[in-house]
Amino acid sequence: MLPHATDAISRDGKSLILAYDHGLEHGPVDFDPNPDTADPERVFELATHDAVTAIAVQKGLAEAYYPDYADDTALVVKVNGTSNLWMGEPDTPVNCTPEYAAGLGADAVGFTLYGGANNEIGMAEEFREVQESSREHDLGVVMWAYPRGQGVRNETDDRTIAYAARIAHELGADIAKVKYPGSPEAMAETVRMSARTRVVMSGGSKTNDESFLRTVEESMNAGAKGLAVGRNVFQRDNPIEILDALELVVFEGASTEEAMAETGAGE
Amino acid sequence: MLPHATDAISRDGKSLILAYDHGLEHGPVDFDPNPDTADPERVFELATHDAVTAIAVQKGLAEAYYPDYADDTALVVKVNGTSNLWMGEPDTPVNCTPEYAAGLGADAVGFTLYGGANNEIGMAEEFREVQESSREHDLGVVMWAYPRGQGVRNETDDRTIAYAARIAHELGADIAKVKYPGSPEAMAETVRMSARTRVVMSGGSKTNDESFLRTVEESMNAGAKGLAVGRNVFQRDNPIEILDALELVVFEGASTEEAMAETGAGE
Amino acid sequence: MLPHATDAISRDGKSLILAYDHGLEHGPVDFDPNPDTADPERVFELATHDAVTAIAVQKGLAEAYYPDYADDTALVVKVNGTSNLWMGEPDTPVNCTPEYAAGLGADAVGFTLYGGANNEIGMAEEFREVQESSREHDLGVVMWAYPRGQGVRNETDDRTIAYAARIAHELGADIAKVKYPGSPEAMAETVRMSARTRVVMSGGSKTNDESFLRTVEESMNAGAKGLAVGRNVFQRDNPIEILDALELVVFEGASTEEAMAETGAGE
Amino acid sequence: MLPHATDAISRDGKSLILAYDHGLEHGPVDFDPNPDTADPERVFELATHDAVTAIAVQKGLAEAYYPDYADDTALVVKVNGTSNLWMGEPDTPVNCTPEYAAGLGADAVGFTLYGGANNEIGMAEEFREVQESSREHDLGVVMWAYPRGQGVRNETDDRTIAYAARIAHELGADIAKVKYPGSPEAMAETVRMSARTRVVMSGGSKTNDESFLRTVEESMNAGAKGLAVGRNVFQRDNPIEILDALELVVFEGASTEEAMAETGAGE
Amino acid sequence: MLPHATDAISRDGKSLILAYDHGLEHGPVDFDPNPDTADPERVFELATHDAVTAIAVQKGLAEAYYPDYADDTALVVKVNGTSNLWMGEPDTPVNCTPEYAAGLGADAVGFTLYGGANNEIGMAEEFREVQESSREHDLGVVMWAYPRGQGVRNETDDRTIAYAARIAHELGADIAKVKYPGSPEAMAETVRMSARTRVVMSGGSKTNDESFLRTVEESMNAGAKGLAVGRNVFQRDNPIEILDALELVVFEGASTEEAMAETGAGE
Repeated sequence: MLPHATDAISRDGKSLILAYDHGLEHGPVDFDPNPDTADPERVFELATHDAVTAIAVQKGLAEAYYPDYADDTALVVKVNGTSNLWMGEPDTPVNCTPEYAAGLGADAVGFTLYGGANNEIGMAEEFREVQESSREHDLGVVMWAYPRGQGVRNETDDRTIAYAARIAHELGADIAKVKYPGSPEAMAETVRMSARTRVVMSGGSKTNDESFLRTVEESMNAGAKGLAVGRNVFQRDNPIEILDALELVVFEGASTEEAMAETGAGE
Repeated sequence: MLPHATDAISRDGKSLILAYDHGLEHGPVDFDPNPDTADPERVFELATHDAVTAIAVQKGLAEAYYPDYADDTALVVKVNGTSNLWMGEPDTPVNCTPEYAAGLGADAVGFTLYGGANNEIGMAEEFREVQESSREHDLGVVMWAYPRGQGVRNETDDRTIAYAARIAHELGADIAKVKYPGSPEAMAETVRMSARTRVVMSGGSKTNDESFLRTVEESMNAGAKGLAVGRNVFQRDNPIEILDALELVVFEGASTEEAMAETGAGE
Repeated sequence: MLPHATDAISRDGKSLILAYDHGLEHGPVDFDPNPDTADPERVFELATHDAVTAIAVQKGLAEAYYPDYADDTALVVKVNGTSNLWMGEPDTPVNCTPEYAAGLGADAVGFTLYGGANNEIGMAEEFREVQESSREHDLGVVMWAYPRGQGVRNETDDRTIAYAARIAHELGADIAKVKYPGSPEAMAETVRMSARTRVVMSGGSKTNDESFLRTVEESMNAGAKGLAVGRNVFQRDNPIEILDALELVVFEGASTEEAMAETGAGE
Repeated sequence: MLPHATDAISRDGKSLILAYDHGLEHGPVDFDPNPDTADPERVFELATHDAVTAIAVQKGLAEAYYPDYADDTALVVKVNGTSNLWMGEPDTPVNCTPEYAAGLGADAVGFTLYGGANNEIGMAEEFREVQESSREHDLGVVMWAYPRGQGVRNETDDRTIAYAARIAHELGADIAKVKYPGSPEAMAETVRMSARTRVVMSGGSKTNDESFLRTVEESMNAGAKGLAVGRNVFQRDNPIEILDALELVVFEGASTEEAMAETGAGE
Repeated sequence: MLPHATDAISRDGKSLILAYDHGLEHGPVDFDPNPDTADPERVFELATHDAVTAIAVQKGLAEAYYPDYADDTALVVKVNGTSNLWMGEPDTPVNCTPEYAAGLGADAVGFTLYGGANNEIGMAEEFREVQESSREHDLGVVMWAYPRGQGVRNETDDRTIAYAARIAHELGADIAKVKYPGSPEAMAETVRMSARTRVVMSGGSKTNDESFLRTVEESMNAGAKGLAVGRNVFQRDNPIEILDALELVVFEGASTEEAMAETGAGE
């Protein structure tokens, strides 16, 4: 963690990262609920919403679309990722160097580390290279801190998630993206373990407005510094509405109820 | 995908790539239907046909023959490929660097990625190196997007092919070469998933003129931007005739029937 | 071993390294006895104690906290380490280069080598790179010399520990951190085997004050040149008291009884 | 294949390479028929015969002996090779870089590729590095094109040998060294598949003069451009005589009978 | 092999290398017969004996002690070596680069190659790097030529040892260190196979004076150019006496009987 390393993808020390790497990680199936979202333009447009501090995409989308949006949103290039055609142990290749990401105009890189996976050793070495190269290119470093694989009995266990956030801190990430660990108390513990590395909540599968906003509110109250969200925004019929609500909860300290009342979300 | 990266191997935004890497990938058996085609000169001569926007060959053929044809056609160097003597899991070595390809006069590189293969991870990392180095040398990047291996139940499943085209886009390919997914609707879906990455249809095994032209016509109507074809041209007794017909279908918007009528193909 | 290579992390040729890599190696569980110790600030504060000649942390903590403490303590960056989520054979990735550690203000690097592990070969090659790069950047080299794995029947066997210290010397470490081998005689033998490489005792799991101080006293009398200690300091209710006592035993030649009497430790 | 890349190891477009890597590949047993041949000087002396266009040896022999013979023969450094102590799958390490070979005065490098071996992938990547580096150092590239291993039912199958010659061409070799495929027709087919890459016949195990010369004659008539021979020269009692005969067959277009009559070979 | 590459570690073309890597390879057990020998100073002192042309040690000992002895003996840095804690297949990591060895004042490097081991391929590639880098730094190259592993039925078979010496020559070693192959005739054959690469006899386990000197005498008469010896010197009660005797046998051509009579060895 370096102070100010992620200023460009934050507002008031908080981040709302619109994550859109589903085309690689999950494939076309994630666009079924709302077929237009297969078109990156639609999602880049959403990233221009005031609530969004950065969009996170793979190299190819950054290359093709970011030049059109560079004035309107910040960029996180996700530098590893696997298709789900692959049936092996949890693992993921580095498909973009930080140097290349910097050339695309990135403000930060995103990196998935599967703690507990059989290739945790290899991924940690790749993270070293990515983290150190990112420092050379003035890029912030966001770790997708996702314990997974043979060493992990339960990916949503609160102690496991807290450990993942600590690993992010120990290895030099500026921001740790973690799953919601099930309760405000558990999120507070995760935040405590991550020390000066900031925690953002991972949006996960689409849920209803109220349930989703509630976990965001609880996370913020527990000390999280924002969220990284994809399907819970772009799979909705009205993604603008939920972004309006998220802005209130994340940046204005509104409660779930206040945010729903003001924006119409949840109706 | 970068705008204009593949202009040199396109005409009006469409490409007809004469692929001739069969000597490596399949061996002498592919020259049996028309023994003269073992001689690269014959196929390089075909590449001077107006319909052809580029020839795609392995390094060795580019080195030996392209100097004689550099004024008459553009060059895609296929930078990986395996012999079929090899009996292992789907995989393929990088046998030419983009830097070397550029020195041979290449306008673009071709790279096979087997999504779903046990070595998908390794191939994706090799693709990163090839893609980023290609950008340094102003080479376009064409991905042979071929799901194959343990993670792939059915290589011709339309959703799998659409996913493959998306992977090409996410990883930064300019053009995705995919198999025809079985119907115009499925090809349209593949084109939609590939976003700004252009899709070209893979010619595949030799079929009769009408059947072949029909899939080309359907692909073009579905939004594909051309094709990459080998055996369906060079294994024919009259390859010029089919190239004449392809020019009409690919670049002039002719129907299969019109193209056959005008060129005599299919008779 | 190079003369003076570890002067910056020593006083009078002896070292007391406050090791704090438990957040990575063991996870949150190590902070349970004293929850405040999850906060690196608490432990960096302890490192400003006169007894402490250096703090040893992973890259992330060095990056986030050392700038606040650079005037008050020396820094060892531990350049490899694994989470205990990982269930594989003993192994550990290099997660920081010496060059990067030097940029963080490090005076030395720490490196774990598991002699007898299935990947001993690979770790020894990584050690070569780290050791040689450390010389280029004027960093001392501390080896966590921990035999472990398939080739090691008993990690605490005195001959095994003596062998580990010798390996540290043969491979070019300046300091070997070893477990207490069970008796003063065995520690003397370990010191003898390590030749000019200095031996420091590893603190290990928390024990009571008297027992802990006794092994330190015995180690010093046997020729050890200090200790590297974590849990036996930071897990205590009164870490200052034990540091006061350690200063007497390590640097002033006091006996356990004298140190306890003077500081109140052991009461 | 580059024009003129192997001019230095050819005469009139044909090559007679005296191969002498048997000390590594087979060991002392190959010197039993004629013990003096263990001494590289004896074989380097043979290489000064007019018929010989180059000697092919491993790095160590080139380093020790070639300075004494640089004015009298050209040099191919064989840059990979394995001892037959090794019992693993067909594979071979690169034991000399082209850069180093160039420093030894080499005119070309030799590289064994086992098509169909489990490590064909790795060997093809090594060939890429060797081939591209050879171009930088103006060295010709000779591939020992030897299908072998799990994917190869029959190493002497004529289609397999033709395929091997084609692989050499596709990957950028200037000369392909192949086993005699059993008949003049099969050799002609191999030559046809290799396109502009020149084919030289591999001498193989020692046979009688007439039989050996006959396969050379047939190969030359089938379009081969020479041979690479070791045991069939140096294991003979009168190696000069067979070299005299080879000169007639390879460079003068003599028949086996004419060559035997003129030189006394076969008596 | 390069002429003069090992002049610095030779006298009159012969070498007596005092090998002292036992602390790494075998561990403390090798110092049991004479505990003082755990102290490298003792052995470096022995290396100042007139009979010794160089000392061979691992990097760590060279770093710590050679500066005190650089005026009195030449240095071979052994650049690979494994602890015997390791239980895997015969293999050994490169733990020092030639560049680093040169910085320590080395005159040559030592490298173990296990012909016939499952990792023979990998070790041969490492040898390439070490050999070529050594040439850049003007270092001689000594190969510990030790067939071992799955492909080797009998490590002391005379044909196997002769083959090992040949491998050393083929791969570019200046000196091959081999085990005594059992008879003067076998050693002569080994010397013959190694061609211009010089053979030195490996001292092996401690034997009695007469027996040891006899194998040295026989080796010298068979054409060996010296020996590399460790335990047969430093494990003796009177190492000076045996060095006096070795000087007579190796450099003065004395017989075993003469050497024993003159020095008192064997009494």
